[in-house]
Amino acid sequence: MGANTFGRLYQLHSFGESHGKAIGGIVEGFPAGFELDMSLIKFELLRRRTNQGVFSSKRSEPDDIQFLSGIFEGKTLGTPIAFAVENSNANPKDYESIRDIYRPSHADYTWEMKFGLRDYRGGGRSSARETLSRVVAGAMAKQYLEKMGISITAWVQQIGDIQSEEKSMVDGKEIENSILRCPDAMAERQMLQRIDVAAKQGDTLGGVIKCSIRGLKAGLGEPVFDKLQALLAHAILSINAVKGFEYGSGFASAAMRGSEHNDEFVLKNAKITTATNHSGGIQGGISNGEEVYFNAAFKPVASISKVQKTVDNKGELIEVEIKGRHDVCVLPRAVPIVEAMAAMVIMDLVLLQNNNQY
Amino acid sequence: MGANTFGRLYQLHSFGESHGKAIGGIVEGFPAGFELDMSLIKFELLRRRTNQGVFSSKRSEPDDIQFLSGIFEGKTLGTPIAFAVENSNANPKDYESIRDIYRPSHADYTWEMKFGLRDYRGGGRSSARETLSRVVAGAMAKQYLEKMGISITAWVQQIGDIQSEEKSMVDGKEIENSILRCPDAMAERQMLQRIDVAAKQGDTLGGVIKCSIRGLKAGLGEPVFDKLQALLAHAILSINAVKGFEYGSGFASAAMRGSEHNDEFVLKNAKITTATNHSGGIQGGISNGEEVYFNAAFKPVASISKVQKTVDNKGELIEVEIKGRHDVCVLPRAVPIVEAMAAMVIMDLVLLQNNNQY
Amino acid sequence: MGANTFGRLYQLHSFGESHGKAIGGIVEGFPAGFELDMSLIKFELLRRRTNQGVFSSKRSEPDDIQFLSGIFEGKTLGTPIAFAVENSNANPKDYESIRDIYRPSHADYTWEMKFGLRDYRGGGRSSARETLSRVVAGAMAKQYLEKMGISITAWVQQIGDIQSEEKSMVDGKEIENSILRCPDAMAERQMLQRIDVAAKQGDTLGGVIKCSIRGLKAGLGEPVFDKLQALLAHAILSINAVKGFEYGSGFASAAMRGSEHNDEFVLKNAKITTATNHSGGIQGGISNGEEVYFNAAFKPVASISKVQKTVDNKGELIEVEIKGRHDVCVLPRAVPIVEAMAAMVIMDLVLLQNNNQY
Amino acid sequence: MGANTFGRLYQLHSFGESHGKAIGGIVEGFPAGFELDMSLIKFELLRRRTNQGVFSSKRSEPDDIQFLSGIFEGKTLGTPIAFAVENSNANPKDYESIRDIYRPSHADYTWEMKFGLRDYRGGGRSSARETLSRVVAGAMAKQYLEKMGISITAWVQQIGDIQSEEKSMVDGKEIENSILRCPDAMAERQMLQRIDVAAKQGDTLGGVIKCSIRGLKAGLGEPVFDKLQALLAHAILSINAVKGFEYGSGFASAAMRGSEHNDEFVLKNAKITTATNHSGGIQGGISNGEEVYFNAAFKPVASISKVQKTVDNKGELIEVEIKGRHDVCVLPRAVPIVEAMAAMVIMDLVLLQNNNQY
Repeated sequence: MGANTFGRLYQLHSFGESHGKAIGGIVEGFPAGFELDMSLIKFELLRRRTNQGVFSSKRSEPDDIQFLSGIFEGKTLGTPIAFAVENSNANPKDYESIRDIYRPSHADYTWEMKFGLRDYRGGGRSSARETLSRVVAGAMAKQYLEKMGISITAWVQQIGDIQSEEKSMVDGKEIENSILRCPDAMAERQMLQRIDVAAKQGDTLGGVIKCSIRGLKAGLGEPVFDKLQALLAHAILSINAVKGFEYGSGFASAAMRGSEHNDEFVLKNAKITTATNHSGGIQGGISNGEEVYFNAAFKPVASISKVQKTVDNKGELIEVEIKGRHDVCVLPRAVPIVEAMAAMVIMDLVLLQNNNQY
Repeated sequence: MGANTFGRLYQLHSFGESHGKAIGGIVEGFPAGFELDMSLIKFELLRRRTNQGVFSSKRSEPDDIQFLSGIFEGKTLGTPIAFAVENSNANPKDYESIRDIYRPSHADYTWEMKFGLRDYRGGGRSSARETLSRVVAGAMAKQYLEKMGISITAWVQQIGDIQSEEKSMVDGKEIENSILRCPDAMAERQMLQRIDVAAKQGDTLGGVIKCSIRGLKAGLGEPVFDKLQALLAHAILSINAVKGFEYGSGFASAAMRGSEHNDEFVLKNAKITTATNHSGGIQGGISNGEEVYFNAAFKPVASISKVQKTVDNKGELIEVEIKGRHDVCVLPRAVPIVEAMAAMVIMDLVLLQNNNQY
Repeated sequence: MGANTFGRLYQLHSFGESHGKAIGGIVEGFPAGFELDMSLIKFELLRRRTNQGVFSSKRSEPDDIQFLSGIFEGKTLGTPIAFAVENSNANPKDYESIRDIYRPSHADYTWEMKFGLRDYRGGGRSSARETLSRVVAGAMAKQYLEKMGISITAWVQQIGDIQSEEKSMVDGKEIENSILRCPDAMAERQMLQRIDVAAKQGDTLGGVIKCSIRGLKAGLGEPVFDKLQALLAHAILSINAVKGFEYGSGFASAAMRGSEHNDEFVLKNAKITTATNHSGGIQGGISNGEEVYFNAAFKPVASISKVQKTVDNKGELIEVEIKGRHDVCVLPRAVPIVEAMAAMVIMDLVLLQNNNQY
Repeated sequence: MGANTFGRLYQLHSFGESHGKAIGGIVEGFPAGFELDMSLIKFELLRRRTNQGVFSSKRSEPDDIQFLSGIFEGKTLGTPIAFAVENSNANPKDYESIRDIYRPSHADYTWEMKFGLRDYRGGGRSSARETLSRVVAGAMAKQYLEKMGISITAWVQQIGDIQSEEKSMVDGKEIENSILRCPDAMAERQMLQRIDVAAKQGDTLGGVIKCSIRGLKAGLGEPVFDKLQALLAHAILSINAVKGFEYGSGFASAAMRGSEHNDEFVLKNAKITTATNHSGGIQGGISNGEEVYFNAAFKPVASISKVQKTVDNKGELIEVEIKGRHDVCVLPRAVPIVEAMAAMVIMDLVLLQNNNQY
């Protein structure tokens, strides 16, 4: 009934509508005695918030987060860590016009079919503002994983028809120096042009985000139904606007031969490793110690300024023109969300991992 | 610790190693008083088993399934339905040669890293023979869904570099008349040639399976973390050899404009429907009443006959030549597995659905 | 890791330390479209708060609750309902004296052994203030159940050595007119005397609360591991200070004969009912349509004013004298908590019930 | 929908009807690499089976158990351990007479109300034969816990109106030398007389089982909703015929003063311990390192030979005389079941425990 919980041992219970009182959540399962760096959490919220949609990187202040429990004298207590961010700029009147209308490719119609009613203000709980809670829980997980030598870095691989060059190693800090969070400066310039054109036409763009996870030991992941890749796919497909997930060789593997695709084991400094990494660091659902990497495809944002045909809740055909300032392309802002979801998956598996061997 | 359970209200608890005593499971949450058609379950097991890897469709008998509980006088009792299929042809000696070897792109190494030991016979629990339990639980779900007007049909869309023509409507029964479970006869002939060549070279092929779900009412799916697409992605990525999942417009959406991609709502016989279906029948994680469709990418099978380099569990570099009769391409046999996983997801959501409105 | 979630379909995710920022929770699974009566929730909070420990019923204002999500235009949205109550009177200095001390029969020592640290202020999360969240989630469930004709009423059956007369029917409203929430005025007078004496001696009293659930249809409860009585026992034993649970004939049944104890089925107005109700309305873990009733035993409160011997966290023997105003007997205040836990169990089972028959 | 799974990390998925094909289950979460002693599992099954109801201890052979998966070369694999015991003596005709009858204080009526149908043969899944699966999963847990220095011992404390003398230490092996599993030889003789009388009168007896858990370290248990005592209560109340649970001082605590009841901390060999143990080894839901002990009250068996009044499924008043050989008193046979449930709870918490501190 809603499934607002993510994870098994490391859990986020999420709540909040876009224009309700607050967005927030409870993080459960964070080990006791850990010193959380609040500035890192705020930094991730800032990354999610910054509007880099149309050129200008207007760095606004981060969402103001309040922690309500679970932390004492700077350390985690092992109890639930509740947090909330108030929705300050809620102005319901702005949304009166879409109260009775089902916007194309939005969740208005389906939520109403499911629940019998909906909070129409800014999409209610179907708004991407909900991902704020994910970023918080992910930022906590990232800190914990960092101490274990695990790093998670995502970046923009494609916007519209422009692809970034494939890079084998991308530095998370460098990414932050790029307006579009794209490691290929040449591609970024072209992407910015595409965004400019789309903006002028009242249109929107999709793209692809790539994510890399380094520092995993071999043995992480629950085989059979909760394979590492299955949990990642679940996590990533739960993000608004994501239409596809592939890891390692992905869809391209379909056209490969087994002899090309297999990753032979080799020794490197007396350590078992693989000569290639089509497996994306996962074999049989379990990490093999190599880099885990995956792609997430995002559709273009549904909120376009162009006039569209649709129906209202009386079943009448109407025309709708979605007003307000909307992102032309959410890919740069989605980068920290992808990282957060991946971090929660890995954190959960790390905690589960403690119980495998006698 | 293993995660051998799938689902929330409709659950499969799965068990069994490839060459252990038996493979089986417990289906929990099947409503009481339903007359199960055992022949339909056996038919699905037969579909999974038939070796169509190399031309010849040697239709062997289905795996012999025993039901141990949960059914009385032909009807489900509402209690757990346990079943088991014995592993008759277990001959451990065949596998002595791989006991200490990590086969490339197999799960040998990772399972041993996770659990500290492994059942090396035929891959143990990492074998695709494990999917037998999924097919049984899926076949039960399909029967239940059928009564509600919901049908689930998958087919082979691509093998190696050969793509089937896109079809808007594929008939499940027709598919069974195709050796490769491919609805495009011309493409099928080319695929068969590719398989023939690969077989002669001791190599293997991957491909893509497409799946279509029809008859869903609007309102199915749990928004936020358990979006319909997220549950499907989880289910599909948990199948051995799957490397990618996309639904609706999928990865192609990344290069589309919002104005192209949005599905305008229209009226058809006074019923709300969409003019296009890039959304793949899902908006905001909830079904909108249109066809739900998705693609699953399969890598080429890791068991090739060619000599490969690898290491053993003493950390020595060695060469390995995998013996025995292996599938050149598992796509046709994977079709019922994809359908089964999709059926379990939908069944679970249908049962959850009962609780949404007051 | 903490287990701060209660329930399967109707869930409370609870958070908060006694002297942290706030106590609260998220209620998940409440059906959409229900008009919540906020005054009933506040009334239950008031019942929990009122200090009736020592004669004087100083009715203070209820804890000030804020709802953060899940309710729109007065109706539930089917999304998570988050709420928080600020801890206004937190004064950490009051607790400096117990910072390093393990109070006898308190949770100080065990929490520190488990988590390696603890919030010592007012017991942190082990404080009974945590039950505030339960009362909120229970008050919502009670409203929903009320509409289905299900009522849940608890009262004080015993305080110290004074037993209330057994009553077959107790009216919830009448109970509220009793200072000690005891339906037997004569017993109540004696209980008040006992409380008076204990208070003067700096001592505390335990007791027994009885709870009655009426209006359940036959068929509620999950047999085998989640029998109705097992879920109730789990719920009740999770309340601070509860040491025992019995339902129906309870511990007295141990000395009965089968021929005395069995409840013969009879017809009453053509409806199947039982002549007696030693079964407490439950047979085989499932409700039979009769009244469900149970007892909960509470130990005397651990916070006494008398000097006690104990050890500190350096392992030194010391003497401790617990200061501050503490309840002599928590039974009256625990009545709404018992009702709340029972209501959550029944609500969960009612929602699960929807899926049993085809 | 049935709730046939017990536990979170250490899980039993149970299946089977009394007269179906088999009774069995899947144990999930047992750590890999452990050498299971099968003779200990068979011994526990024998303890459960032996009919000690009426004097004669006719030691019959244990139920014949088959392990289907999860064990390889004598060691656990970390994969699900499935097992089944065939129901050999099923003779459905014996039960034709109760097909349409609701036996008093049995689960016939309630199961039929819940599921719309029932397997009437021997009570179907509501039969105590279902506890066989619990004993298997518990016997595995006990072995694991034994290696950690944790022992779990239960015995008969009361039968009918005869109470055993309270003993502070009971030796599990000694208990097995007692026909009634009662450590007090004088009380046992009286109990046997009571059983003899009841048997002659076609009647049945209830009683109380006491259980002691030794060797727990401080820090075990999940505070708030899954307190150690709450999980034990859930486990014990899920056993057929149990009507009450109390731990430590239990119901007697209700009449005690705080100053009597509190367990002062003292030092013993420089180790923190408590001077008394009214807390039953648990404070704030977490073990404190002392003995954990609890009582379980069992009602007299519902199957009596005397003629009883009841109704049938046409709503007609009838008389029923339950035939067949039934236990006069199940307490001795329930001893290993109580131990098994306690063992599963402790095992689960031990596995969860690994994740608490950073």
